[in-house]
Amino acid sequence: MPGVPPFLSSQQRKCVVLLSGGLDSVTAMAVALRDGFTVHALSFRYGQRHSAEIDAAIRIARRYRVEHQIVDIDLTIFGGSALTADIAVPRDAGDSTGDIPITYVPARNTIFLSYALALAEVIGSTDIFIGVNALDYSGYPDCRPEYIAAFERMANLATRAGVEGQEPLRIRAPLISLSKADIIRLGASLGVDYSMTLSCYDPADDGAACGHCDACRLRLKGFREAGLEDPIRYAAEGASP
Amino acid sequence: MPGVPPFLSSQQRKCVVLLSGGLDSVTAMAVALRDGFTVHALSFRYGQRHSAEIDAAIRIARRYRVEHQIVDIDLTIFGGSALTADIAVPRDAGDSTGDIPITYVPARNTIFLSYALALAEVIGSTDIFIGVNALDYSGYPDCRPEYIAAFERMANLATRAGVEGQEPLRIRAPLISLSKADIIRLGASLGVDYSMTLSCYDPADDGAACGHCDACRLRLKGFREAGLEDPIRYAAEGASP
Repeated sequence: MPGVPPFLSSQQRKCVVLLSGGLDSVTAMAVALRDGFTVHALSFRYGQRHSAEIDAAIRIARRYRVEHQIVDIDLTIFGGSALTADIAVPRDAGDSTGDIPITYVPARNTIFLSYALALAEVIGSTDIFIGVNALDYSGYPDCRPEYIAAFERMANLATRAGVEGQEPLRIRAPLISLSKADIIRLGASLGVDYSMTLSCYDPADDGAACGHCDACRLRLKGFREAGLEDPIRYAAEGASP
Repeated sequence: MPGVPPFLSSQQRKCVVLLSGGLDSVTAMAVALRDGFTVHALSFRYGQRHSAEIDAAIRIARRYRVEHQIVDIDLTIFGGSALTADIAVPRDAGDSTGDIPITYVPARNTIFLSYALALAEVIGSTDIFIGVNALDYSGYPDCRPEYIAAFERMANLATRAGVEGQEPLRIRAPLISLSKADIIRLGASLGVDYSMTLSCYDPADDGAACGHCDACRLRLKGFREAGLEDPIRYAAEGASP
Protein backbone atom coordinates (compact mmCIF):
# COMPACT_ATOMS: atom_id res chain seq x y z
CA MET A 1 0.00 0.00 0.00
CA PRO A 2 1.89 3.05 -1.22
CA GLY A 3 1.76 6.05 1.09
CA VAL A 4 0.71 4.10 4.19
CA PRO A 5 3.49 3.47 6.72
CA PRO A 6 3.78 -0.27 7.38
CA PHE A 7 3.34 0.22 11.11
CA LEU A 8 0.13 2.19 10.83
CA SER A 9 -1.03 -0.18 8.17
CA SER A 10 -0.58 -3.28 10.29
CA GLN A 11 -2.29 -1.62 13.26
CA GLN A 12 -5.34 -0.33 11.52
CA ARG A 13 -6.28 -2.39 8.51
CA LYS A 14 -9.40 -4.49 8.96
CA CYS A 15 -10.45 -7.24 6.64
CA VAL A 16 -13.35 -9.62 6.25
CA VAL A 17 -12.48 -13.33 5.94
CA LEU A 18 -15.03 -15.82 4.66
CA LEU A 19 -14.53 -18.65 7.14
CA SER A 20 -16.28 -21.89 6.29
CA GLY A 21 -14.42 -24.01 8.81
CA GLY A 22 -12.68 -25.91 6.04
CA LEU A 23 -9.00 -26.24 5.32
CA ASP A 24 -8.83 -23.52 2.68
CA SER A 25 -10.64 -20.75 4.55
CA VAL A 26 -8.55 -21.10 7.72
CA THR A 27 -5.41 -20.96 5.60
CA ALA A 28 -6.67 -17.78 3.91
CA MET A 29 -7.34 -16.35 7.39
CA ALA A 30 -3.82 -17.23 8.50
CA VAL A 31 -2.49 -15.33 5.46
CA ALA A 32 -4.63 -12.29 6.39
CA LEU A 33 -3.25 -12.36 9.95
CA ARG A 34 0.32 -12.77 8.67
CA ASP A 35 -0.25 -9.70 6.48
CA GLY A 36 -1.18 -7.63 9.52
CA PHE A 37 -4.94 -7.41 9.14
CA THR A 38 -7.41 -7.30 11.99
CA VAL A 39 -9.75 -10.10 10.97
CA HIS A 40 -13.54 -10.08 11.03
CA ALA A 41 -14.53 -13.64 10.17
CA LEU A 42 -17.87 -14.29 8.50
CA SER A 43 -19.61 -17.67 8.30
CA PHE A 44 -22.95 -18.84 6.95
CA ARG A 45 -25.43 -21.35 8.28
CA TYR A 46 -27.27 -22.60 5.22
CA GLY A 47 -28.25 -26.20 5.79
CA GLN A 48 -27.99 -29.02 8.27
CA ARG A 49 -25.21 -30.80 6.45
CA HIS A 50 -22.97 -27.89 7.29
CA SER A 51 -23.57 -27.68 11.03
CA ALA A 52 -20.33 -29.58 11.67
CA GLU A 53 -18.49 -27.13 9.45
CA ILE A 54 -20.00 -24.15 11.33
CA ASP A 55 -18.88 -25.74 14.60
CA ALA A 56 -15.38 -25.91 13.13
CA ALA A 57 -15.57 -22.23 12.11
CA ILE A 58 -16.60 -21.27 15.65
CA ARG A 59 -13.70 -23.29 17.15
CA ILE A 60 -11.24 -21.68 14.74
CA ALA A 61 -12.44 -18.11 15.35
CA ARG A 62 -12.20 -18.67 19.11
CA ARG A 63 -8.72 -20.13 18.86
CA TYR A 64 -7.52 -17.15 16.81
CA ARG A 65 -9.52 -14.70 18.95
CA VAL A 66 -10.97 -12.92 15.93
CA GLU A 67 -14.38 -11.31 15.64
CA HIS A 68 -16.85 -13.73 14.12
CA GLN A 69 -20.31 -13.28 12.72
CA ILE A 70 -22.57 -16.07 11.56
CA VAL A 71 -25.29 -15.20 9.08
CA ASP A 72 -28.31 -17.43 8.53
CA ILE A 73 -28.99 -17.98 4.87
CA ASP A 74 -32.59 -18.61 3.94
CA LEU A 75 -32.75 -21.80 1.89
CA THR A 76 -36.07 -20.95 0.26
CA ILE A 77 -34.69 -20.39 -3.18
CA PHE A 78 -31.94 -22.97 -3.15
CA GLY A 79 -32.36 -26.39 -4.56
CA GLY A 80 -30.68 -28.63 -7.01
CA SER A 81 -27.50 -29.17 -5.01
CA ALA A 82 -26.46 -32.19 -2.96
CA LEU A 83 -25.23 -29.77 -0.28
CA THR A 84 -28.61 -28.14 0.36
CA ALA A 85 -31.31 -30.36 -1.13
CA ASP A 86 -32.15 -33.93 -0.28
CA ILE A 87 -29.75 -35.40 -2.82
CA ALA A 88 -27.08 -37.94 -1.87
CA VAL A 89 -23.48 -36.72 -1.86
CA PRO A 90 -21.52 -38.76 -4.40
CA ARG A 91 -18.89 -41.15 -3.01
CA ASP A 92 -15.71 -42.10 -4.84
CA ALA A 93 -16.93 -40.29 -7.91
CA GLY A 94 -13.65 -40.66 -9.76
CA ASP A 95 -11.61 -37.82 -11.15
CA SER A 96 -13.31 -34.71 -12.40
CA THR A 97 -14.88 -35.13 -15.81
CA GLY A 98 -14.97 -31.40 -16.42
CA ASP A 99 -18.66 -31.26 -15.56
CA ILE A 100 -19.90 -29.17 -12.67
CA PRO A 101 -20.59 -31.60 -9.81
CA ILE A 102 -23.90 -32.06 -8.02
CA THR A 103 -22.42 -30.51 -4.87
CA TYR A 104 -22.33 -27.13 -6.62
CA VAL A 105 -24.66 -24.62 -4.89
CA PRO A 106 -26.02 -22.00 -7.30
CA ALA A 107 -24.39 -18.60 -6.85
CA ARG A 108 -23.06 -19.56 -3.43
CA ASN A 109 -19.79 -17.66 -3.49
CA THR A 110 -21.57 -14.67 -5.03
CA ILE A 111 -24.02 -14.57 -2.13
CA PHE A 112 -21.25 -15.06 0.44
CA LEU A 113 -19.08 -12.35 -1.11
CA SER A 114 -22.07 -9.99 -1.31
CA TYR A 115 -22.64 -10.31 2.44
CA ALA A 116 -18.90 -9.87 2.98
CA LEU A 117 -19.09 -6.71 0.89
CA ALA A 118 -21.89 -5.37 3.10
CA LEU A 119 -19.91 -6.19 6.25
CA ALA A 120 -16.74 -4.63 4.81
CA GLU A 121 -18.61 -1.44 4.09
CA VAL A 122 -20.17 -1.37 7.56
CA ILE A 123 -16.87 -1.89 9.42
CA GLY A 124 -14.83 0.30 7.08
CA SER A 125 -12.71 -2.41 5.52
CA THR A 126 -11.39 -2.51 1.97
CA ASP A 127 -10.20 -6.12 1.91
CA ILE A 128 -12.14 -9.37 1.69
CA PHE A 129 -10.31 -12.71 1.89
CA ILE A 130 -11.76 -15.84 0.34
CA GLY A 131 -10.11 -19.24 0.30
CA VAL A 132 -11.06 -20.32 -3.21
CA ASN A 133 -8.55 -22.10 -5.35
CA ALA A 134 -8.67 -22.85 -9.03
CA LEU A 135 -6.39 -25.89 -8.93
CA ASP A 136 -7.52 -29.02 -7.12
CA TYR A 137 -10.94 -27.42 -6.87
CA SER A 138 -14.20 -29.17 -7.42
CA GLY A 139 -15.05 -27.65 -10.80
CA TYR A 140 -17.24 -24.85 -9.44
CA PRO A 141 -17.44 -21.85 -11.79
CA ASP A 142 -17.27 -19.38 -8.92
CA CYS A 143 -13.78 -20.48 -7.88
CA ARG A 144 -12.00 -19.16 -10.97
CA PRO A 145 -9.65 -16.14 -11.03
CA GLU A 146 -11.70 -14.40 -13.73
CA TYR A 147 -14.79 -14.69 -11.53
CA ILE A 148 -12.98 -13.17 -8.53
CA ALA A 149 -11.68 -10.30 -10.71
CA ALA A 150 -15.18 -9.63 -12.06
CA PHE A 151 -16.66 -9.65 -8.55
CA GLU A 152 -14.02 -7.16 -7.40
CA ARG A 153 -14.79 -4.86 -10.30
CA MET A 154 -18.52 -5.04 -9.60
CA ALA A 155 -17.94 -4.49 -5.87
CA ASN A 156 -16.10 -1.27 -6.54
CA LEU A 157 -19.06 0.04 -8.50
CA ALA A 158 -21.60 -1.19 -5.93
CA THR A 159 -20.45 0.68 -2.88
CA ARG A 160 -19.46 4.02 -1.45
CA ALA A 161 -15.87 3.29 -2.45
CA GLY A 162 -16.77 3.54 -6.11
CA VAL A 163 -18.66 6.80 -5.72
CA GLU A 164 -16.60 8.70 -3.24
CA GLY A 165 -13.16 7.92 -4.60
CA GLN A 166 -11.96 6.08 -1.51
CA GLU A 167 -9.41 3.32 -1.50
CA PRO A 168 -10.70 0.53 -3.74
CA LEU A 169 -12.09 -2.71 -2.41
CA ARG A 170 -9.99 -5.78 -3.01
CA ILE A 171 -11.12 -9.37 -3.14
CA ARG A 172 -8.07 -11.31 -2.00
CA ALA A 173 -7.86 -14.95 -2.97
CA PRO A 174 -4.36 -15.87 -1.78
CA LEU A 175 -4.82 -19.60 -2.51
CA ILE A 176 -6.23 -19.23 -5.99
CA SER A 177 -3.22 -20.57 -7.87
CA LEU A 178 -2.04 -23.05 -5.24
CA SER A 179 -2.50 -26.80 -5.29
CA LYS A 180 -4.10 -28.39 -2.25
CA ALA A 181 -0.64 -29.61 -1.18
CA ASP A 182 0.76 -26.07 -1.51
CA ILE A 183 -2.12 -24.72 0.58
CA ILE A 184 -1.42 -27.25 3.31
CA ARG A 185 2.31 -26.48 3.25
CA LEU A 186 1.55 -22.74 3.45
CA GLY A 187 -0.85 -23.21 6.35
CA ALA A 188 1.58 -25.50 8.19
CA SER A 189 4.30 -22.84 7.80
CA LEU A 190 1.90 -20.32 9.37
CA GLY A 191 1.14 -22.64 12.28
CA VAL A 192 -2.38 -23.59 11.23
CA ASP A 193 -3.73 -26.47 13.29
CA TYR A 194 -5.69 -28.42 10.71
CA SER A 195 -7.19 -30.66 13.37
CA MET A 196 -9.68 -27.82 13.92
CA THR A 197 -10.94 -27.94 10.34
CA LEU A 198 -13.57 -29.99 8.56
CA SER A 199 -13.81 -30.38 4.80
CA CYS A 200 -16.14 -33.37 4.43
CA TYR A 201 -19.43 -32.90 2.60
CA ASP A 202 -21.00 -35.79 4.48
CA PRO A 203 -19.54 -36.20 7.98
CA ALA A 204 -20.74 -38.92 10.36
CA ASP A 205 -22.85 -38.02 13.38
CA ASP A 206 -19.75 -38.15 15.57
CA GLY A 207 -18.00 -35.60 13.29
CA ALA A 208 -15.70 -38.06 11.54
CA ALA A 209 -15.05 -37.26 7.88
CA CYS A 210 -16.32 -39.80 5.35
CA GLY A 211 -13.08 -40.08 3.35
CA HIS A 212 -15.00 -40.66 0.14
CA CYS A 213 -16.63 -37.41 -0.98
CA ASP A 214 -14.86 -35.03 -3.38
CA ALA A 215 -13.77 -32.75 -0.55
CA CYS A 216 -12.27 -35.61 1.51
CA ARG A 217 -10.49 -37.03 -1.52
CA LEU A 218 -8.94 -33.69 -2.46
CA ARG A 219 -7.92 -33.09 1.13
CA LEU A 220 -6.34 -36.51 1.64
CA LYS A 221 -4.50 -36.23 -1.67
CA GLY A 222 -3.23 -32.79 -0.62
CA PHE A 223 -1.86 -34.02 2.69
CA ARG A 224 -0.26 -37.01 0.99
CA GLU A 225 1.43 -34.80 -1.62
CA ALA A 226 2.55 -32.34 1.06
CA GLY A 227 4.15 -35.23 2.95
CA LEU A 228 2.06 -34.46 6.03
CA GLU A 229 -0.48 -36.43 8.00
CA ASP A 230 -4.07 -35.20 8.09
CA PRO A 231 -4.80 -34.77 11.81
CA ILE A 232 -8.58 -35.06 11.54
CA ARG A 233 -10.51 -38.23 12.25
CA TYR A 234 -12.00 -40.27 9.40
CA ALA A 235 -14.73 -42.87 9.66
CA ALA A 236 -13.03 -46.29 10.00
CA GLU A 237 -14.15 -47.65 6.66
CA GLY A 238 -13.16 -44.47 4.87
CA ALA A 239 -9.61 -43.98 6.07
CA SER A 240 -7.93 -44.50 2.73
CA PRO A 241 -9.15 -42.49 -0.26
CA MET B 1 -33.72 -13.69 -29.46
CA PRO B 2 -32.41 -14.86 -32.84
CA GLY B 3 -33.24 -18.45 -33.70
CA VAL B 4 -36.09 -18.80 -31.20
CA PRO B 5 -39.60 -18.63 -32.69
CA PRO B 6 -41.59 -15.87 -30.97
CA PHE B 7 -44.33 -18.28 -29.98
CA LEU B 8 -42.03 -20.75 -28.27
CA SER B 9 -40.15 -17.88 -26.75
CA SER B 10 -43.19 -16.33 -25.14
CA GLN B 11 -44.36 -19.72 -23.87
CA GLN B 12 -41.14 -20.84 -22.35
CA ARG B 13 -38.95 -17.98 -21.22
CA LYS B 14 -38.84 -17.58 -17.47
CA CYS B 15 -37.42 -14.59 -15.68
CA VAL B 16 -36.78 -13.52 -12.12
CA VAL B 17 -38.15 -10.10 -11.12
CA LEU B 18 -36.93 -8.37 -7.97
CA LEU B 19 -40.24 -7.15 -6.54
CA SER B 20 -39.97 -4.74 -3.63
CA GLY B 21 -43.57 -3.62 -3.71
CA GLY B 22 -42.57 -0.14 -4.78
CA LEU B 23 -43.50 1.76 -7.90
CA ASP B 24 -40.36 0.92 -9.88
CA SER B 25 -40.29 -2.82 -9.33
CA VAL B 26 -43.92 -3.37 -10.33
CA THR B 27 -43.28 -1.35 -13.49
CA ALA B 28 -40.24 -3.51 -14.27
CA MET B 29 -42.45 -6.59 -13.74
CA ALA B 30 -45.08 -5.19 -16.10
CA VAL B 31 -42.34 -4.78 -18.74
CA ALA B 32 -41.24 -8.39 -18.23
CA LEU B 33 -44.83 -9.60 -18.68
CA ARG B 34 -45.27 -7.39 -21.76
CA ASP B 35 -42.12 -8.97 -23.20
CA GLY B 36 -43.63 -12.45 -22.83
CA PHE B 37 -41.74 -13.75 -19.82
CA THR B 38 -43.17 -16.09 -17.24
CA VAL B 39 -42.36 -14.18 -14.06
CA HIS B 40 -40.93 -15.56 -10.82
CA ALA B 41 -41.07 -12.64 -8.41
CA LEU B 42 -38.56 -12.47 -5.56
CA SER B 43 -38.90 -10.27 -2.47
CA PHE B 44 -36.86 -9.84 0.67
CA ARG B 45 -37.89 -9.36 4.26
CA TYR B 46 -35.00 -7.51 5.86
CA GLY B 47 -36.38 -5.27 8.57
CA GLN B 48 -39.60 -4.17 10.21
CA ARG B 49 -39.73 -0.85 8.38
CA HIS B 50 -40.33 -2.76 5.19
CA SER B 51 -43.18 -4.99 6.30
CA ALA B 52 -45.68 -2.67 4.59
CA GLU B 53 -43.64 -2.89 1.41
CA ILE B 54 -43.60 -6.70 1.60
CA ASP B 55 -47.38 -6.65 2.03
CA ALA B 56 -47.55 -4.57 -1.15
CA ALA B 57 -45.32 -7.07 -2.98
CA ILE B 58 -47.59 -9.93 -1.90
CA ARG B 59 -50.71 -8.06 -3.10
CA ILE B 60 -49.06 -7.28 -6.45
CA ALA B 61 -47.86 -10.86 -7.04
CA ARG B 62 -51.36 -12.17 -6.26
CA ARG B 63 -53.00 -9.66 -8.57
CA TYR B 64 -50.67 -10.62 -11.43
CA ARG B 65 -50.87 -14.33 -10.52
CA VAL B 66 -47.10 -14.79 -10.73
CA GLU B 67 -44.96 -17.13 -8.66
CA HIS B 68 -43.57 -15.30 -5.66
CA GLN B 69 -40.86 -16.19 -3.20
CA ILE B 70 -39.97 -14.16 -0.12
CA VAL B 71 -36.50 -14.61 1.30
CA ASP B 72 -35.63 -13.62 4.86
CA ILE B 73 -32.44 -11.64 5.02
CA ASP B 74 -30.47 -11.96 8.23
CA LEU B 75 -29.78 -8.47 9.55
CA THR B 76 -26.78 -9.52 11.63
CA ILE B 77 -24.19 -7.76 9.55
CA PHE B 78 -26.23 -4.77 8.47
CA GLY B 79 -26.04 -1.49 10.23
CA GLY B 80 -25.40 2.10 9.42
CA SER B 81 -28.54 2.65 7.35
CA ALA B 82 -31.73 4.43 8.33
CA LEU B 83 -33.65 1.64 6.60
CA THR B 84 -32.31 -1.17 8.81
CA ALA B 85 -30.79 0.38 11.92
CA ASP B 86 -32.46 2.51 14.53
CA ILE B 87 -31.75 5.79 12.74
CA ALA B 88 -34.48 8.29 11.88
CA VAL B 89 -35.44 8.55 8.22
CA PRO B 90 -34.74 12.14 7.06
CA ARG B 91 -37.79 14.27 6.27
CA ASP B 92 -37.80 17.04 3.68
CA ALA B 93 -34.08 16.63 3.27
CA GLY B 94 -33.89 19.00 0.32
CA ASP B 95 -32.52 18.11 -3.08
CA SER B 96 -29.70 15.66 -3.39
CA THR B 97 -26.34 17.13 -2.51
CA GLY B 98 -24.48 14.42 -4.37
CA ASP B 99 -23.73 12.60 -1.13
CA ILE B 100 -24.97 9.08 -0.55
CA PRO B 101 -27.98 9.37 1.77
CA ILE B 102 -28.38 7.71 5.16
CA THR B 103 -31.09 5.45 3.73
CA TYR B 104 -28.45 3.63 1.67
CA VAL B 105 -28.14 -0.03 2.74
CA PRO B 106 -24.64 -1.41 2.16
CA ALA B 107 -24.45 -3.78 -0.80
CA ARG B 108 -28.23 -4.25 -0.83
CA ASN B 109 -28.78 -4.59 -4.56
CA THR B 110 -25.72 -6.84 -4.79
CA ILE B 111 -27.19 -9.20 -2.19
CA PHE B 112 -30.63 -9.10 -3.84
CA LEU B 113 -29.22 -9.74 -7.31
CA SER B 114 -27.07 -12.57 -5.94
CA TYR B 115 -30.15 -14.35 -4.59
CA ALA B 116 -31.91 -13.66 -7.90
CA LEU B 117 -28.95 -15.23 -9.67
CA ALA B 118 -29.27 -18.36 -7.53
CA LEU B 119 -33.01 -18.55 -8.22
CA ALA B 120 -32.47 -17.97 -11.94
CA GLU B 121 -30.00 -20.84 -12.04
CA VAL B 122 -32.33 -23.15 -10.10
CA ILE B 123 -35.39 -22.48 -12.30
CA GLY B 124 -33.42 -22.36 -15.56
CA SER B 125 -33.88 -18.69 -16.33
CA THR B 126 -31.40 -16.42 -18.07
CA ASP B 127 -33.08 -13.09 -17.34
CA ILE B 128 -33.27 -11.06 -14.14
CA PHE B 129 -35.33 -7.85 -14.03
CA ILE B 130 -34.54 -5.10 -11.55
CA GLY B 131 -36.34 -1.77 -11.32
CA VAL B 132 -33.36 0.46 -10.63
CA ASN B 133 -33.13 3.81 -12.30
CA ALA B 134 -30.21 6.18 -12.51
CA LEU B 135 -32.27 9.35 -12.96
CA ASP B 136 -34.45 10.58 -10.11
CA TYR B 137 -32.78 7.97 -7.94
CA SER B 138 -31.64 8.51 -4.40
CA GLY B 139 -27.91 8.65 -5.07
CA TYR B 140 -27.24 4.99 -4.33
CA PRO B 141 -24.10 3.66 -6.04
CA ASP B 142 -25.74 0.35 -6.87
CA CYS B 143 -28.38 1.93 -9.11
CA ARG B 144 -25.99 3.03 -11.85
CA PRO B 145 -25.78 1.45 -15.33
CA GLU B 146 -22.07 0.67 -14.95
CA TYR B 147 -22.85 -1.26 -11.77
CA ILE B 148 -25.57 -3.31 -13.49
CA ALA B 149 -23.22 -4.07 -16.40
CA ALA B 150 -20.47 -5.18 -14.00
CA PHE B 151 -22.89 -7.41 -12.08
CA GLU B 152 -24.03 -9.03 -15.33
CA ARG B 153 -20.45 -9.71 -16.36
CA MET B 154 -19.65 -11.22 -12.95
CA ALA B 155 -22.87 -13.28 -13.00
CA ASN B 156 -21.89 -14.88 -16.28
CA LEU B 157 -18.60 -16.00 -14.76
CA ALA B 158 -20.23 -17.17 -11.51
CA THR B 159 -22.62 -19.75 -12.84
CA ARG B 160 -23.06 -22.77 -15.03
CA ALA B 161 -23.84 -20.44 -17.93
CA GLY B 162 -20.28 -19.15 -17.96
CA VAL B 163 -18.74 -22.60 -17.91
CA GLU B 164 -21.00 -24.62 -20.12
CA GLY B 165 -21.46 -22.15 -22.93
CA GLN B 166 -25.20 -21.76 -22.45
CA GLU B 167 -27.17 -18.66 -23.25
CA PRO B 168 -25.74 -15.81 -21.22
CA LEU B 169 -27.48 -14.36 -18.20
CA ARG B 170 -28.87 -10.89 -18.61
CA ILE B 171 -29.57 -8.35 -15.91
CA ARG B 172 -32.41 -6.28 -17.35
CA ALA B 173 -32.93 -2.81 -15.93
CA PRO B 174 -35.62 -1.44 -18.25
CA LEU B 175 -36.12 1.72 -16.17
CA ILE B 176 -32.48 2.64 -15.79
CA SER B 177 -32.53 5.66 -18.08
CA LEU B 178 -36.10 6.79 -17.36
CA SER B 179 -37.20 9.66 -15.17
CA LYS B 180 -39.72 8.87 -12.44
CA ALA B 181 -42.40 10.56 -14.59
CA ASP B 182 -41.43 8.38 -17.58
CA ILE B 183 -41.61 5.26 -15.39
CA ILE B 184 -45.11 6.21 -14.23
CA ARG B 185 -46.22 6.92 -17.80
CA LEU B 186 -44.79 3.56 -18.94
CA GLY B 187 -46.49 1.70 -16.11
CA ALA B 188 -49.80 3.46 -16.73
CA SER B 189 -49.59 2.46 -20.42
CA LEU B 190 -49.13 -1.16 -19.31
CA GLY B 191 -52.12 -0.98 -16.98
CA VAL B 192 -50.20 -0.94 -13.71
CA ASP B 193 -52.44 -0.11 -10.77
CA TYR B 194 -50.15 2.04 -8.65
CA SER B 195 -52.61 1.99 -5.76
CA MET B 196 -51.11 -1.43 -4.93
CA THR B 197 -47.62 -0.02 -4.47
CA LEU B 198 -45.81 1.56 -1.55
CA SER B 199 -42.65 3.62 -1.87
CA CYS B 200 -42.47 5.39 1.51
CA TYR B 201 -39.46 4.74 3.76
CA ASP B 202 -41.46 5.59 6.86
CA PRO B 203 -45.16 4.72 6.46
CA ALA B 204 -47.68 5.31 9.26
CA ASP B 205 -49.12 2.36 11.19
CA ASP B 206 -52.22 2.50 9.00
CA GLY B 207 -50.08 2.20 5.85
CA ALA B 208 -50.34 5.84 4.76
CA ALA B 209 -47.19 7.19 3.12
CA CYS B 210 -45.44 10.02 4.98
CA GLY B 211 -45.09 12.33 1.97
CA HIS B 212 -41.79 13.71 3.28
CA CYS B 213 -39.08 11.09 2.89
CA ASP B 214 -36.88 10.98 -0.23
CA ALA B 215 -38.92 8.16 -1.73
CA CYS B 216 -42.26 9.95 -1.25
CA ARG B 217 -40.88 13.21 -2.63
CA LEU B 218 -39.49 11.53 -5.77
CA ARG B 219 -42.75 9.66 -6.24
CA LEU B 220 -45.00 12.69 -5.84
CA LYS B 221 -42.79 14.75 -8.16
CA GLY B 222 -42.98 11.92 -10.73
CA PHE B 223 -46.77 11.76 -10.68
CA ARG B 224 -46.98 15.54 -10.90
CA GLU B 225 -44.63 15.66 -13.91
CA ALA B 226 -46.50 12.77 -15.56
CA GLY B 227 -49.74 14.71 -15.15
CA LEU B 228 -51.29 11.85 -13.17
CA GLU B 229 -52.66 11.58 -9.69
CA ASP B 230 -50.92 9.30 -7.21
CA PRO B 231 -53.65 6.87 -6.08
CA ILE B 232 -52.05 5.90 -2.76
CA ARG B 233 -53.00 7.43 0.55
CA TYR B 234 -50.73 9.93 2.28
CA ALA B 235 -50.81 10.91 5.93
CA ALA B 236 -52.96 14.03 6.22
CA GLU B 237 -50.18 16.38 7.19
CA GLY B 238 -47.94 15.05 4.46
CA ALA B 239 -50.19 15.31 1.42
CA SER B 240 -48.20 17.96 -0.40
CA PRO B 241 -44.49 17.42 -0.90
